[in-house]
Amino acid sequence: MHKRFVTNIISRILLIICFVMTLPLAWAVHDDLYSKETQSFTITICFGIVISCIFLWFFRIKKEDYKKINTKDGLAIVGLSWICLSIFGAIPLWLSQVVSSYTDAFFEIVSGFTTTGSTIFVDIEIVPRGILFWRSLTHWLGGMGIIVLYIALLPALGTNAFQLYKAEAPGITVERVEPRIKETAKNLWGIYFFLSFAETVCLLLGGMPLFDSLCHTFGTMATGGFSTKNASIGAYGPFIQWTIFFFMFLAGINFILHYSALKGRPKTYFKDEEFRWYFFLVLILIAIFGIVLMFSGGSQSPWRDAAFQVVSIVTTTGYTSVDFDIWPQALRFFLVILMFIGGCGGSTGGGMKFIRALLSVKIALRSVTQAVFPNAILPIKFNFKALSDRLVTAVLSYFAVFMLLFFFGAGLFILTESCDLVTAFTASIAALSNIGPGLGKVGATQNYAWVSMPGKWLLTFLMLAGRLELYSILILFIPATWRK
Amino acid sequence: MHKRFVTNIISRILLIICFVMTLPLAWAVHDDLYSKETQSFTITICFGIVISCIFLWFFRIKKEDYKKINTKDGLAIVGLSWICLSIFGAIPLWLSQVVSSYTDAFFEIVSGFTTTGSTIFVDIEIVPRGILFWRSLTHWLGGMGIIVLYIALLPALGTNAFQLYKAEAPGITVERVEPRIKETAKNLWGIYFFLSFAETVCLLLGGMPLFDSLCHTFGTMATGGFSTKNASIGAYGPFIQWTIFFFMFLAGINFILHYSALKGRPKTYFKDEEFRWYFFLVLILIAIFGIVLMFSGGSQSPWRDAAFQVVSIVTTTGYTSVDFDIWPQALRFFLVILMFIGGCGGSTGGGMKFIRALLSVKIALRSVTQAVFPNAILPIKFNFKALSDRLVTAVLSYFAVFMLLFFFGAGLFILTESCDLVTAFTASIAALSNIGPGLGKVGATQNYAWVSMPGKWLLTFLMLAGRLELYSILILFIPATWRK
Repeated sequence: MHKRFVTNIISRILLIICFVMTLPLAWAVHDDLYSKETQSFTITICFGIVISCIFLWFFRIKKEDYKKINTKDGLAIVGLSWICLSIFGAIPLWLSQVVSSYTDAFFEIVSGFTTTGSTIFVDIEIVPRGILFWRSLTHWLGGMGIIVLYIALLPALGTNAFQLYKAEAPGITVERVEPRIKETAKNLWGIYFFLSFAETVCLLLGGMPLFDSLCHTFGTMATGGFSTKNASIGAYGPFIQWTIFFFMFLAGINFILHYSALKGRPKTYFKDEEFRWYFFLVLILIAIFGIVLMFSGGSQSPWRDAAFQVVSIVTTTGYTSVDFDIWPQALRFFLVILMFIGGCGGSTGGGMKFIRALLSVKIALRSVTQAVFPNAILPIKFNFKALSDRLVTAVLSYFAVFMLLFFFGAGLFILTESCDLVTAFTASIAALSNIGPGLGKVGATQNYAWVSMPGKWLLTFLMLAGRLELYSILILFIPATWRK
Repeated sequence: MHKRFVTNIISRILLIICFVMTLPLAWAVHDDLYSKETQSFTITICFGIVISCIFLWFFRIKKEDYKKINTKDGLAIVGLSWICLSIFGAIPLWLSQVVSSYTDAFFEIVSGFTTTGSTIFVDIEIVPRGILFWRSLTHWLGGMGIIVLYIALLPALGTNAFQLYKAEAPGITVERVEPRIKETAKNLWGIYFFLSFAETVCLLLGGMPLFDSLCHTFGTMATGGFSTKNASIGAYGPFIQWTIFFFMFLAGINFILHYSALKGRPKTYFKDEEFRWYFFLVLILIAIFGIVLMFSGGSQSPWRDAAFQVVSIVTTTGYTSVDFDIWPQALRFFLVILMFIGGCGGSTGGGMKFIRALLSVKIALRSVTQAVFPNAILPIKFNFKALSDRLVTAVLSYFAVFMLLFFFGAGLFILTESCDLVTAFTASIAALSNIGPGLGKVGATQNYAWVSMPGKWLLTFLMLAGRLELYSILILFIPATWRK
């Protein structure tokens, strides 16, 4: 790892965050100039600027250093910068004493940046607005990606920017976007901004105040899940719920497809195999959930609840309009399965990603056919193109690592909390897939305040690993990463 | 598929089973000559002989037909013969009316042949001894494999016998045993017989009656789990429990290693990487379980219970000496994990097999290193040999198919039974891994009598798929298998 280079880039990203933090500061000032929040944000921003300037001075880099950056550095920059930003971003919560310990502050901010949406606040409605705005804003930053924002805003990373982009962008990068990486990053953030603006306007039209509209927009477009109400989206009427449903669904789609559609090629959506399956699965599941809820009588508005919860979980947003933990067992089961799958590649959704789940199923089915024809060469096709053996192994390895981390997380969680199996398993997957609510003691109407300190640190690790496609975090545990 | 050939071989195997069925008939006659059981066995045997002779006559094969057999035929013979034998083997239970429906009889016998050990009998101690002996005997036949027995006993399959052997023997066949396949089959059955004999003698010395000794030997050596007592092994004292513990541990080891050891090379055990990990894991887990049970005070004999249950679950035997469903949550969690892993390849144990779990972990860890060095070639080593890419893909595909079947099974089970999640998930893995007891409503002290008819058929499917390494059963759903 080129430590000088890595430190330099992380310091620059820290500077960006300091500037962004002036927005929640503005809310805090607007509400009460002499409040603890105003102080906390001011101190944090000053501290951040000083620290990053010192580091930038000591770890100066030259133009030729940019050429040295390799995949390892790319992964390390992404992994370390997310950790550093979370440590830094948690400071205002800690200083303003809205949380009881730094662990809680860190948990909340990691949950924000990774778009998980798990909260340790028992009563969210008494938390000052500056703090609420900041934690929702971390969703929005983390959703499309801070590194992608860096690439879009700052110059000079050059062609090596792809190494960084690849390490943070979710899903499998099938097309090589290398030559125009800066342009791609700009376009993605542009669409993200545009859709967010559209949602805010819709929510305002639905009668939601500006502050809540912004926070919920951040939570929706990033597939995060932080709300400003204790009842989450259940606190709002049908219009708001359908609006958020619609934008959650959009946020779970590959943003490259949105870009194509806005460029005047709306057919691109259905030309994409991943989107077709995503659309199809969501439709089928809403139908199943709706019918079951209608006949079981467990819901007053079965279709709205079905549509909202299916999309909320499959996109890994985690907003709740109703307590799905009391739904029939079969529906709870389907929700657990959806937790593993997650949104499409290139979306802001978490989980294993739709494309990987799809390819894993295809590869599994191929192995059955392969048993019948052991000598046949049976390529795996995606969007009519055959996948390389290397990519097949990569997809399966990812699946294996994901499942191992899931079991590992559930095992450690049960050791630290000695809770029931359903709580442990769903807490693990809810963190790893960046969803937020699970079942049982971490269910739709619950929160993570009761979790012990080691349990919270474990979950933050799972959240970061899940958001950064596992490897950016896991490589930090390998000695080879730290060698020059 | 060469239908004529496949039908012929299955008919021969049916004949073997008819002869074997004279043993439970003997017990039934010994107990009561005029009982329903005696009648049932007699009718079934006569029916079986007539049917198989008719088939053998209509589907005659010539010497040159043997050369035509391919992998597809091998898999189909194994899959179909197991289904046919289960259908046939269930008849005595059905005719003697010890069960209420044919579904129950079929479930019990599939659970027997596949060495699962799940039972639908609520009170096992009132079931006639002939029937009890037959269901325990199916364990013993299914443990080492009926096809392997066929290869060992009957001549003329020639070099193609390897196709059949491969399709039934559990785990990955690393060495090619093709040229001496008949000899291998004989040796394996020889050791199996020898160890079974040794266990019976030990149990007799421990004061267990002959009938119970034989039934428990069958259940142990095959890693089955059928007992003749309602309290399973909990009904016996420490000596019997330690004896069964020891032989369960042996049954979970690759039988090729036992063969080497008996040939005077006992060091072979520790030269084998899979055995080392198996030994190590069992030791560690017994230590953990023992310490937790000692301090939680949930057991009167913590070390014996720990040792017995860990080995019973990891070898997928499923005998219970104590109700582990009331143990601390962390221990229940570890038991669930063990359910996935299973015994060593080449043992009579079920599950994913130790070797596959081990290789999956190795491959997952490699992918982390690969992220740091994307262009490096990092071979996966096992017993100091590098694995081919083909085998790596095969192991990962197996892992994916196994997990998909597990989720599929749990999903359908919850739809048919609308039970809780823990019951559904553990019922699915307990069937797929051929264990028997799960947790919750299928826990250590429970049975499968309450499961609905569709649920029972689902579980039999999972048991067969799990025992026959998935593909022998799954290929039957592919049209290509049935084409000539």
